[in-house]
Amino acid sequence: AIAASATSFAYLNLSNPSISESSSALDSRDITVGGKDSTEAVVKGEYKQVPKELISQLKTILEDNLTTDYDERYFHGKPQNSFHKAVNIPDVVVFPRSEEEVSKILKSCNEYKVPIVPYGGATSIEGHTLAPKGGVCIDMSLMKRVKALHVEDMDVIVEPGIGWLELNEYLEEYGLFFPLDPGPGASIGGMCATRCSGSLAVRYGTMRDNVISLKVVLPNGDVVKTASRARKSAAGYDLTRLIIGSEGTLGVITEITLRLQKIPQHSVVAVCNFPTVKDAADVAIATMMSGIQVSRVELLDEVQIRAINMANGKNLTEAPTLMFEFIGTEAYTREQTQIVQQIASKHNGSDFMFAEEPEAKKELWKIRKEALWACYAMAPGHEAMITDVCVPLSHLAELISRSKKELDASSLLCTVIAHAGDGNFHTCIMFDPSSEEQRREAERLNHFMVHSALSMDGTCTGEHGVGTGKMKYLEKELGIEALQTMKRIKKTLDPNDIMNPGKLIPPHVCF
Amino acid sequence: AIAASATSFAYLNLSNPSISESSSALDSRDITVGGKDSTEAVVKGEYKQVPKELISQLKTILEDNLTTDYDERYFHGKPQNSFHKAVNIPDVVVFPRSEEEVSKILKSCNEYKVPIVPYGGATSIEGHTLAPKGGVCIDMSLMKRVKALHVEDMDVIVEPGIGWLELNEYLEEYGLFFPLDPGPGASIGGMCATRCSGSLAVRYGTMRDNVISLKVVLPNGDVVKTASRARKSAAGYDLTRLIIGSEGTLGVITEITLRLQKIPQHSVVAVCNFPTVKDAADVAIATMMSGIQVSRVELLDEVQIRAINMANGKNLTEAPTLMFEFIGTEAYTREQTQIVQQIASKHNGSDFMFAEEPEAKKELWKIRKEALWACYAMAPGHEAMITDVCVPLSHLAELISRSKKELDASSLLCTVIAHAGDGNFHTCIMFDPSSEEQRREAERLNHFMVHSALSMDGTCTGEHGVGTGKMKYLEKELGIEALQTMKRIKKTLDPNDIMNPGKLIPPHVCF
Repeated sequence: AIAASATSFAYLNLSNPSISESSSALDSRDITVGGKDSTEAVVKGEYKQVPKELISQLKTILEDNLTTDYDERYFHGKPQNSFHKAVNIPDVVVFPRSEEEVSKILKSCNEYKVPIVPYGGATSIEGHTLAPKGGVCIDMSLMKRVKALHVEDMDVIVEPGIGWLELNEYLEEYGLFFPLDPGPGASIGGMCATRCSGSLAVRYGTMRDNVISLKVVLPNGDVVKTASRARKSAAGYDLTRLIIGSEGTLGVITEITLRLQKIPQHSVVAVCNFPTVKDAADVAIATMMSGIQVSRVELLDEVQIRAINMANGKNLTEAPTLMFEFIGTEAYTREQTQIVQQIASKHNGSDFMFAEEPEAKKELWKIRKEALWACYAMAPGHEAMITDVCVPLSHLAELISRSKKELDASSLLCTVIAHAGDGNFHTCIMFDPSSEEQRREAERLNHFMVHSALSMDGTCTGEHGVGTGKMKYLEKELGIEALQTMKRIKKTLDPNDIMNPGKLIPPHVCF
Repeated sequence: AIAASATSFAYLNLSNPSISESSSALDSRDITVGGKDSTEAVVKGEYKQVPKELISQLKTILEDNLTTDYDERYFHGKPQNSFHKAVNIPDVVVFPRSEEEVSKILKSCNEYKVPIVPYGGATSIEGHTLAPKGGVCIDMSLMKRVKALHVEDMDVIVEPGIGWLELNEYLEEYGLFFPLDPGPGASIGGMCATRCSGSLAVRYGTMRDNVISLKVVLPNGDVVKTASRARKSAAGYDLTRLIIGSEGTLGVITEITLRLQKIPQHSVVAVCNFPTVKDAADVAIATMMSGIQVSRVELLDEVQIRAINMANGKNLTEAPTLMFEFIGTEAYTREQTQIVQQIASKHNGSDFMFAEEPEAKKELWKIRKEALWACYAMAPGHEAMITDVCVPLSHLAELISRSKKELDASSLLCTVIAHAGDGNFHTCIMFDPSSEEQRREAERLNHFMVHSALSMDGTCTGEHGVGTGKMKYLEKELGIEALQTMKRIKKTLDPNDIMNPGKLIPPHVCF
């Protein structure tokens, strides 16, 4: 993931609100989501006034932790770093302090059939926190406690509003960490909802593999415990993994039991560049095939390296580059570095530049962590359309090469970053949000890469999720039967369709 | 898992049919499943005659691959190595050859509302393939092709009837293997249905973590593709993990895309014994906390070692024993062995006995693989009630010690085997199936261990699943809201309740 944190972006976008240019856009507007092949990303917006009785019920539940202030509603309705247009904003923003309050809020909204939009760190990229039908935005930022840490069980129980960076700061003294690293502002609840991953997934798996159990409130107010705290269980339907990736469309997550990892004893960061993207991708595959369990293997193209050089005054070779991280004992990390160095040299790789000292490693890794800033620095005042597709490993080189022909021929600045060990490939497409022509060109490129990935047995989203942005690709990827099955499950758990409406399941699906 | 293969057991049980002693038991008998606290494992058996029209429809679909022969129906209705009583047997057994035939079979059965029991290797232990309501047993053994192998993607597409041992024989020449090792006769389809794992789960995860995508036929005949072939995806609800562990109650799996691993370059098997089970369990935890990714860490108690000595004429120290497997490069496997040896010595561990040569490793590992045979050898003519609970790591020692007091005080022969790195703990309780008293004592011990595990934040089943045997514990483990959520999902995907009725969801759950 290369999302940026919500707060730091606010100044960029408020001066340039993209809610269809005028505040009157908030009345009832029937903008239909694009048909199967359209590149239109605007979501159908229906707007029904929220009954006063509900507002007063919510005030009784939440006392002061509720606001109808326009700026707060606008901030919560227009995601900071997502290029998706907001056709409506929430009518009210609520800040629950407990699971009990969440249950009461959902029961009330269900009673009046008023939409609910769960809201975490708001760093998601596919419009997950848009409020196309207005309604109640439920901001989880007041529920951010660490409820229990079990060091010997290597697990921790947290509330959804805590950020992964905050959690890792808390865990550091115990020698433990949570091994997922999406955008800096992401919250654990949001990371569950979008089934996120990041650069360490190649070793530790995605959110799906690192959650032991959840507590989730359903629209009828029921609080469901999805599993025990055992690391392994075969007790009934896997409700934990049904909620992970359901993007707030089935319920609100109120508690998460996370599986933790030991902070590695020793690690080495190594960087190597190649004449072509294919060489770099082939080395990533060969490393996976060698049986070495790398901690990270990231691929950056020459345009991304150029952006980094310009933004940081560095002088890196502007060529396709692989960044590795090896962990384990001191001896084993060196052994892994040598083995992969030999693999790289068989694929025209340059000499390895590697670091073992903490500061040197931090400096090297900054190249990767600040990739998105570097793009913004190269294109001031532009928004970034961050794309996300994933293909079986052997197709990554072909997908990137085919895409780069389009990207390099485009008038827009486009850089490539891939979690190469998973076959997961991102681009940052920089466009001027005031130019409809540039937005369409960015969407065309995104569309091209998604269809290319689908034609290679791949998925339209490796880790950023569906939200509104990727809805129109699901049928081609999974077929109508799978979407009808999802809709049956949604209908039985959320009969009044109040949970995050307009997201994940395309509107044309019925059964 | 310590299940034994179906075929090899047939001779043991046919001579001692446990279908309530007389064939007339097949008429309508209203034996209710035990209430919340009963240890009664017999399942409610209703029997409705299967309409002739359906039998003729099935004959049209399947031609010769259908039988109503009593012995075949008995063999399919009375699971070979499961201690659960069968109150009914299927009326007809069908052997589909393709996904298309499976779809037609399900459509027909749904039309006549006749129960379907999916049947793989029949090595499951909790009564999953019992046919309490008779109906159609759908045996997948003719669908066992390897449909595609993608070496560079490290994945393979197979049909459900293939066994994991057969698959690994096929994969060996490519240097790849599928890293789950349940009972020898288990099929990949059955392993998905029961969400199985085995001794390698501590490193590679369970079935849940090693399946990329499924194709599954729903009761209405729809064929659902649950995901693309990308290793990572966030595209909509995780239908793959909903079907994994659904035990044939939502649909029939017809295709599985599996994630494969590289056969380790080098491995070391090490054995060490301890004065107490607590010492052994503490070493397992300390090893996990060291950050070493062991491939296996199995714990056997002194009674199990005695059984192995008697069955194999060995002379192993009869004390709580840990068996490790370390993998990686030659240097790193030795380094891991030394690190864990130091941990063991701080917990009163004996000297390590370890092997690096293939034959020596195979011999050492046989101790663990033949543990169940050794129990049968010690108790000829007895059945084994194989129990399965899982607790957070730090509770394993306490759970085993508390259980051993009961087990050692019992008149029955009971041995302990644990996948110590997951907190997963099995016992083999040997009982004479003709003695109702011994069966009740075995059930009492099983009941005691499950309730002990539940009191320690654990689960009633780490890997053997719910079937009929563990249904009565689910409400205490997960709460009624979780079971009602499962029932809603079952109801919406299988409105006529034809899929494996009487399994997984306790009959008293309604919403």
